[in-house]
Parts: sequence; C-alpha cells; structure tokens
Amino acid sequence: MTWTRREFTKLGAMGTAAMAVPGAFAQAEQRVGFAVIGLGVIADHFMRGARQSQHCRITALVSGHRDKAERIAAEYGVPKESIYSYEEFDRIRDNKAVQAVYVALPNSMHAEYTIRAAKAGKHVFCEKPMAVSSAECRQMIDACKAANVKLMIAYRMQYEPLTLKCIDLVKTGQIGTVGAFESQFGFNIQPGVWRTKKALAGGGSVFDVGIYSLQAARLFTGEEPVEFKAYAGTVHKDDPRFAEMEESIEWTMKFPSGVVASCASSYGAQMEGFMRVHGVNGMIEMGPTFGYDGTTMKGRGKGGVRWDEVNSEKDPKQFEREADHFAECVLNNREPKTPGEEGLRDLTYVEKIYEAAGIKL
Amino acid sequence: MTWTRREFTKLGAMGTAAMAVPGAFAQAEQRVGFAVIGLGVIADHFMRGARQSQHCRITALVSGHRDKAERIAAEYGVPKESIYSYEEFDRIRDNKAVQAVYVALPNSMHAEYTIRAAKAGKHVFCEKPMAVSSAECRQMIDACKAANVKLMIAYRMQYEPLTLKCIDLVKTGQIGTVGAFESQFGFNIQPGVWRTKKALAGGGSVFDVGIYSLQAARLFTGEEPVEFKAYAGTVHKDDPRFAEMEESIEWTMKFPSGVVASCASSYGAQMEGFMRVHGVNGMIEMGPTFGYDGTTMKGRGKGGVRWDEVNSEKDPKQFEREADHFAECVLNNREPKTPGEEGLRDLTYVEKIYEAAGIKL
Repeated sequence: MTWTRREFTKLGAMGTAAMAVPGAFAQAEQRVGFAVIGLGVIADHFMRGARQSQHCRITALVSGHRDKAERIAAEYGVPKESIYSYEEFDRIRDNKAVQAVYVALPNSMHAEYTIRAAKAGKHVFCEKPMAVSSAECRQMIDACKAANVKLMIAYRMQYEPLTLKCIDLVKTGQIGTVGAFESQFGFNIQPGVWRTKKALAGGGSVFDVGIYSLQAARLFTGEEPVEFKAYAGTVHKDDPRFAEMEESIEWTMKFPSGVVASCASSYGAQMEGFMRVHGVNGMIEMGPTFGYDGTTMKGRGKGGVRWDEVNSEKDPKQFEREADHFAECVLNNREPKTPGEEGLRDLTYVEKIYEAAGIKL
Repeated sequence: MTWTRREFTKLGAMGTAAMAVPGAFAQAEQRVGFAVIGLGVIADHFMRGARQSQHCRITALVSGHRDKAERIAAEYGVPKESIYSYEEFDRIRDNKAVQAVYVALPNSMHAEYTIRAAKAGKHVFCEKPMAVSSAECRQMIDACKAANVKLMIAYRMQYEPLTLKCIDLVKTGQIGTVGAFESQFGFNIQPGVWRTKKALAGGGSVFDVGIYSLQAARLFTGEEPVEFKAYAGTVHKDDPRFAEMEESIEWTMKFPSGVVASCASSYGAQMEGFMRVHGVNGMIEMGPTFGYDGTTMKGRGKGGVRWDEVNSEKDPKQFEREADHFAECVLNNREPKTPGEEGLRDLTYVEKIYEAAGIKL
C-alpha cells in the first residue's frame, strides 16, 4: 500500500492543526512512509517495530544487495520500484510514498545519507552514533534545517518506559541529591565486522555501546559533563579486531554540580549493559539494560522504599515506540525529543573521551 | 582463662612442627590471646568473631573509656587488670596472656600502636587501611620485622569464601581473559565521626571503603595497577562533613596487560558494595559485596554456564575467619596471606589516586 493524495492532504491539515493546538497528536490511521537505508541487523529490528507501530510503514528500501532487498520488500509489501541502490538513492526525491528515511548504515555513512535525504526533502531518523565526528553532526543539522525536515537520532533508551521511570524517580528526588554515577556496556565483537574498521565506525566501542552509558550519565544526572579522563587498554594485542581501535576503555567525567561518573565500554570483554546512580538517600541500578528488551531495575529510596521491576515487553517494542515518536513529530510538525543536537552533544563528548585516552580519531 | 606455661610449651613445639611439616595447622584447643586496641564498632565485630573462632580469645582491652572497657571485659571474661589505658599501653609487654593485638583505632593511630605493640613483642593484626601513608606502612613493616612479630592487615574479603570462589573462577579462566573491571563502595556518612576528620582518617572515602574496590580490582585482575586518573567531586559544598575531604571520587586505572578498571567511593552518595569483572567469555558480578555478610554473586562463563549464589553465613563469620587465619599464622609461625606489604601496596595506590584527583593528602 502506498501513500495516497487524500492521505497527504489530511496529513497536511493535521500538521497545521497540531501546530495550532498544543497537545494534538496524529490520528491512528495516519502513517509515515519510511525508506530504510541499509538492511543490516538493526534495520531488521526497526522494520519489525515499524510494522507493529501506529504511525509508520516501510515504503522503500535502499541496499547494495538487490536479492536481499527484494526478499525484504516482499515481506513488507514494498513495491519493487521502491528498491534503490546507493547510486540511485537521490531519485527517492520523486517517491511520494516516502516521507522519511531511516539511516541504518555504518557510522561513517550517516552524514552523507542524512544530507542527501534532506536534500531530497525527506525527514531523517538516524541511528546512533549520529556520525563519526561532531563536525559531521553540525553539517547534518544544518542540512536538515535548510531543507526544513525533521532530524531525530535513534536513542532507544529515551523511549523505554522503565528507563524513563528510573530517570523520573531520580529527578523527583526519590533517592535524594545525586552524587555519582556509573555505567558499562560492551561485548566480545565478531572478527571482520564493519564496527572494527575505523574508517567505517569512526573509532572504538564508545561510538557503538559506550554512547549508551554516556547518554545514561547525562540523563540520570540531568547535567552535561565538563571534564573527561580516560584509559584505553588492549589485552589481545595481536588480535586483528583491535588493529585499528582499542579493546576496552574506561573513562571518568566531572559534572558542574560536583557529580562524578565513570563509564566503560568494550569490544573484547563482555559487559552486560548496566548503570547505577547514587543519591544521598538511596540508589537505583538498571541491569541488564540498554538491550532490545528485558530492561531491569532495582533500587531503594527515601523512606525505605524498595524498587524491583522488569520491563517484560519484547523486542521490537522499543523500536516501535521510537519510530512512532518520530512519525508523530513528522505528522504534527514537532521537534523530536532526541534531535540532531542531542547526537551532536554526544559526539562532542565521544571526541573528548578519546582525546583523554590519548587516541587520535 | 589465661595462657599456661604448658600451652606455651606445646605452642612452641607446634610452631616448630608446622615449619617442618608443610600443611600442619594449629590444633583446635590452641588459642592466641588478643588485646583489642580501640573499642568501637569494628572491634565489636572482631570480638564476636573471635569468641566463636577456633584459635582466638580476647585477653586484654585497650581503651580511653574505662566504664565501657569494664563492661566489655565482663562480657568476654577479660580480667580487670588486663584493661589498659592508651597511656599505660606499653605495660602490655608484661601480660603473658596477650600474644597479639588487634588495632581497631582511627587510621592515623594504626602506625603508632602497631609499632608500640611490636616493641612490646606482640603480633599485630591491624584494621585497614593499614595507615594514613605509605611511609607509615613501611615503618610498621620494619618495626614488626625488627621485633620478629607477625603483621597482618584485616582484609576481610580475602577470607570470604564467595569472594574467593569468584576470584578462583576468574583465575581458572572460566570467563576467559579479563579485559575490564569496575567496583563501587560508599555510603552517606554521619556528621562528626572521626572518618570525616582528615587528621584521623588520612583522607576521604578511598581510605575507608574505596580500598575494597581497589583490593578487588587487584585480586580479580591478578595484576598491579600502573597508572591512575581520577575526579573528586563534592555536591554538598557547604556540608561540614566535606570540609576536609571530597564527597565522592571516581578513578580509573590501567594494568600492565592492558586491563582497564574504574572504581568509585563516596561519603555522600549511597553505593552498595559492588564489582564486575569482564572477560572475553563471560562476566562475574558481586553485589551486594564488601559488607559483613550477605555477599552475593552472579555471572556467566564459558560454555553457557550461569552462576547465582549468596553466602548466607552471618556476621561475624568473616571476622572469625580472618582472626583464625591470623591466629594460625601466629601459632604455626607462618606468614599471613595479607601481610603488611599488602597494606603498603594499597596505601601507595591510595596516594596515587588522590594525587590524580588533585587532592593533597
């Protein structure tokens, strides 16, 4: 099914209405058509999330593998003429069934395809990390502003209810003033994957998984870090996976109020996603967290209250939520909760973390 | 009951036998008489542990509070003439019922009373941190060597079975090569206590609780840290508790193999004792840990094995174990597993951590 002129007209009206009436949201039947750029693992999660969403549909695919793309197109009801190679991507401008793109490419290609999509008049929903440098992030923000399209970075955890509940508990003072924070996320990466190539990934595991811990530190403290110190280390010195990047990295951060934090990420050591925030009157930990489902929290707060919860929603629910948020922003002409500026902030910090570790990106 | 000449003779024979026959240990009826120096909270744990131990008995008390000392003396069957004030401490030399002292004083007094005890010919079991500086640690080691008495630092966790099991799982490769480690320990300290006075404590929370994380990092990696970076932070800037020391501190360490680690401690933010060690094939976390009981571990290792265990032994079991180890070392003329040199290493690192945080001790 493709987007009809009638639906477009209604969409335009809705958008105007949403701007005029704060609080108005897209109606259930309205759907944003997405072109998915890059058909790897994360795109699969996204497409399954979009399929069960209220406001998204997959209407085009961009891939270098025609066979794979045709198979997926059949699965999602995408017409064959809406399959694009990277070379012919700019023709997507003329596809009226596509209002937005989902950028699920290797990190180094995020900027190029975000900018090309913006120039084609398409809204951009881009995977994290936003890009391989803060300079690229700025170019992406500028391009989307110039084209008057939305730009949202896929920070799943900011749309995950249990994470949001924990942040709210902290913000409403349930554990008292926060003094310190820690988080880790890492895994033992497969050899040969693009994430181990600096030219594609931008750098090591902070770009990929460490960015979750960085995000969490900012969200749970409610502050922006101002100073960074770090050590990178490689135990498997002859391992080709670590020829172009560190194996593990641990960094500490200082925040304006005096909060201190430390985080770690790794491509060699297994680090199930985890975080702890420490207040005067209690603490909250999430672990496992940052994964596609099964997010878990426990803690204790003021007055002896104890928390112990699991989000039992299953993957791809997180993708569905973030996709729907972006679609609602598109449909109602609203700014996403995690715009390009949020991705830029993180990339600025990622650069500082690697600089502190003595690693040139 | 006091030590008899007959028991002493047997002890001498056992000592010789133990030196000659590796693996020989003290017989159940042999007990080392301890003078407890300082009658605070930790001394209470120790005395209860000693009471249920195989090889220890409390035979003297050293305190500035005669009433308190008499009450405790009655409870533990210590004769009134074996209660000493700090001024008259050196007279303990003549008390044949005292073979060892347990130093449970504020940190700044550890060196003085260890050295005085050694000069009085008594073996020394000293609480952690060993002292307030590495220089003091060296003096303590020298004094005990010169007097030919044992010196052991009370690193409880090195005598806690579940911690030892976890270390063994790591050392035997059950989670593969270790790449990274993290640990935290901290609490919201009461105002006015001696630990908030730099002259008595030596410095902030690393001396008290951070030293557990530091120890754990060394034990679980099996390596000695070679580089340190740190941030100290104080959120409650006008709080008199933090007039002389930082509120929270987060530090990272690098180890020779390339392992990286980060640890945190705090006197303002609640940080239930916790540690995680990350290997190529799995990870182990302990939390809560470092406490007097209830130590908990879970993890996953090679071949999909999963661990989930709690040590359900109750306080003061840990104190009993470490006291018995020390007594066996005294009775059998063996070197304790955690001698003064172990305390010296940690103090050297504590000094480096504070230096890295820009804090002058």
